Amino acid sequence: MTSTLERRLVAEALGTGLLVAAVIGSGIMGQRLAGGNVAIALLANTIATGAALVALILTFGPISGAHFNPVVTGCAVGSGETSPREGAGYILAQILGGLGGAVLANAMFDLAPITWAATARHGSSQLLSEAVATFGLVGVIISTGRRQPSTTPYAVAAYITAAYWFTASTSFANPAVTIARATSDTFAGIRPEDVLPFVLAQAVGGALAALVFGWLAPRGKAS
Amino acid sequence: MTSTLERRLVAEALGTGLLVAAVIGSGIMGQRLAGGNVAIALLANTIATGAALVALILTFGPISGAHFNPVVTGCAVGSGETSPREGAGYILAQILGGLGGAVLANAMFDLAPITWAATARHGSSQLLSEAVATFGLVGVIISTGRRQPSTTPYAVAAYITAAYWFTASTSFANPAVTIARATSDTFAGIRPEDVLPFVLAQAVGGALAALVFGWLAPRGKAS
Amino acid sequence: MTSTLERRLVAEALGTGLLVAAVIGSGIMGQRLAGGNVAIALLANTIATGAALVALILTFGPISGAHFNPVVTGCAVGSGETSPREGAGYILAQILGGLGGAVLANAMFDLAPITWAATARHGSSQLLSEAVATFGLVGVIISTGRRQPSTTPYAVAAYITAAYWFTASTSFANPAVTIARATSDTFAGIRPEDVLPFVLAQAVGGALAALVFGWLAPRGKAS
Amino acid sequence: MTSTLERRLVAEALGTGLLVAAVIGSGIMGQRLAGGNVAIALLANTIATGAALVALILTFGPISGAHFNPVVTGCAVGSGETSPREGAGYILAQILGGLGGAVLANAMFDLAPITWAATARHGSSQLLSEAVATFGLVGVIISTGRRQPSTTPYAVAAYITAAYWFTASTSFANPAVTIARATSDTFAGIRPEDVLPFVLAQAVGGALAALVFGWLAPRGKAS
Repeated sequence: MTSTLERRLVAEALGTGLLVAAVIGSGIMGQRLAGGNVAIALLANTIATGAALVALILTFGPISGAHFNPVVTGCAVGSGETSPREGAGYILAQILGGLGGAVLANAMFDLAPITWAATARHGSSQLLSEAVATFGLVGVIISTGRRQPSTTPYAVAAYITAAYWFTASTSFANPAVTIARATSDTFAGIRPEDVLPFVLAQAVGGALAALVFGWLAPRGKAS
Repeated sequence: MTSTLERRLVAEALGTGLLVAAVIGSGIMGQRLAGGNVAIALLANTIATGAALVALILTFGPISGAHFNPVVTGCAVGSGETSPREGAGYILAQILGGLGGAVLANAMFDLAPITWAATARHGSSQLLSEAVATFGLVGVIISTGRRQPSTTPYAVAAYITAAYWFTASTSFANPAVTIARATSDTFAGIRPEDVLPFVLAQAVGGALAALVFGWLAPRGKAS
Repeated sequence: MTSTLERRLVAEALGTGLLVAAVIGSGIMGQRLAGGNVAIALLANTIATGAALVALILTFGPISGAHFNPVVTGCAVGSGETSPREGAGYILAQILGGLGGAVLANAMFDLAPITWAATARHGSSQLLSEAVATFGLVGVIISTGRRQPSTTPYAVAAYITAAYWFTASTSFANPAVTIARATSDTFAGIRPEDVLPFVLAQAVGGALAALVFGWLAPRGKAS
Repeated sequence: MTSTLERRLVAEALGTGLLVAAVIGSGIMGQRLAGGNVAIALLANTIATGAALVALILTFGPISGAHFNPVVTGCAVGSGETSPREGAGYILAQILGGLGGAVLANAMFDLAPITWAATARHGSSQLLSEAVATFGLVGVIISTGRRQPSTTPYAVAAYITAAYWFTASTSFANPAVTIARATSDTFAGIRPEDVLPFVLAQAVGGALAALVFGWLAPRGKAS
């Protein structure tokens, strides 16, 4: 990662934006075409999201590390890989990029730039789901990143593909994406008031993973 | 594999737990959303399971070898790669981790922690299916593990993805996962009384594969 | 890329032809079998197209670079990787090959060799979609091509798989393929009068990506 | 490929058998569960076949080359890579293994060991489809095998995944598999009297590919 900070921030914003556009856009398309079968809509949404992650992490990874996710950046700051100042820049870029991606998705499907989502997503099983989803995501990133980094893009994409189905919340697992999904009242939407609990559950899951996988796969040496 | 035994056992428990959570959780989600079309539910279950295997084997492979399966550990003991004592620890960790994963999946979907499954899975074609499924799985692991180990995560995931559809039992192929699936009365469940025959059929298939592929792909030399 | 120009042009024509045959043919098959559920037809079309891209880029990449796309060739000319003369040859080969692929797909499904498509695809959201789709495609190609070229086949296929769902136009993103799709009045078709605006939007998206990713991932050095 | 001939023949028989079991078995399961939606059944059949190819080629490739297909073996004999005597052994092993796989699939699904298929597959568009399917398959194998052999398992699996949908015949592309599919009167079946024309069309497509790709990707040198 020897790109300039300027390039890295643009990469994080652009990558998160395209990821959000893929999540929201494929949700809209899936729902429009699926004729009421939610499983088929979610299958389309899943395949598009997993595929987008493969493409975007391969594309932006060599430039910015392809975090696209404040929890991932937070863990990198916590472990000293990224400075707090740079981490703050990353997170801001992710949130702004994500919002841009939502506006773009809405525009591609002839919707108003921003429509606040009405889909309620709350309750303890939803929050448990988000904590589990983010725990696994951060674990995958830490372990593959330290032991076999060329596999990280595929491992992350595969993990999220699975987690869309095995968690009750369909695995947002990303605060920047969660915020952006509140601005599109479509298949992938989430009510603004449900965003903060989701983000907190994600932070808890991510922090726990940093502890557990920090111990399981210590850096710089096999052990 | 130079992680400490403690780390390896935690990795086996955690990995098997997340695998079971993926199998059971995606089954619940698939069935809830598919509107009665079992093929669509199984398709979702298949994609989630295959993707989870890619992610989890890449994540835990460098730590514990990512067996997640008593038959795989048994073969490793049989071939001298793993000591009997360590093998026993692995198997215990897999079973306990698997049960934890079932409880977690049930909790994420607002179900009681344990509900004994009522789905009957028995008869000679089911047992033949389990023997075939496990034979192939162990064969894939032995051959790729000895000849091109970096491909094992993808080969195993691809094999199970296929075997969900080409065996009549949807390919449990794993005693720890089979036991865990008895504790969730959902799409992926199996009646407790059907567990032992499944496990025996899996053991037979695995042992046969150890013989056949031990001869086909002898260790340590091309031949 | 040390193949003779003759071989490279044949590879571009053959590869683009097979790609178009995959796009159009799988659209026909999907629509015939899906019983009116457009999401299932598009899912089949998506999986076939993504898989064809993996296979065809791996197959023709070492021979011609596997552009299969006048926008990609245009960017290669713009950056000096390809001479204008060679670029013109590539584009001609792509267009002729694509038309041949359409005729082949029609023939395999017992349709007349050429039937002008009647599907209207126009309006600003469609054109925005094409610009976004091509922007992302060219970005993926530039960045992975410069930083980790062995991943390009997978990244491109994954990107198009996602873009089929997250853009409102189902992501043509390729002038040669767009022209060819006008000659088959089937699932993947586009009215002849809608071709030119699509091609212009693709050119705009591609040119923008060449600027942005040329800066983000400068050639020949990390920065 | 330094395995003994005995091991290679067993590998070809076993690999082709498991491939046929995957093709036929997943067809049965898909049809039973899909509730009459043929697209969903074929989607399951496609995913299982593509995934089986990844797993089986990775598993048996280092032992026998994982031909599993008389046309592929025929091309290897034609180019001098395999002796005619060894080629004959391979083809016999493939046919016998394939028949064994059909019997196994039938048994796993509680059907009689052999039931002659009643599905008519004939006519010029079907034969054109088989020629195209096999042309592409052999082209993928020749080009990736000569230029980047570690990608062949993925390229072949991806190609067949696509070809199931873009050819009107669902791409048998393999004489041993075609013969075996005549012995199971299920989703993947083919009437015995339609086998020979399919095999001839496959031979024509394969031979043409050997010529074209032999020129496009000459062995042993870039050109």
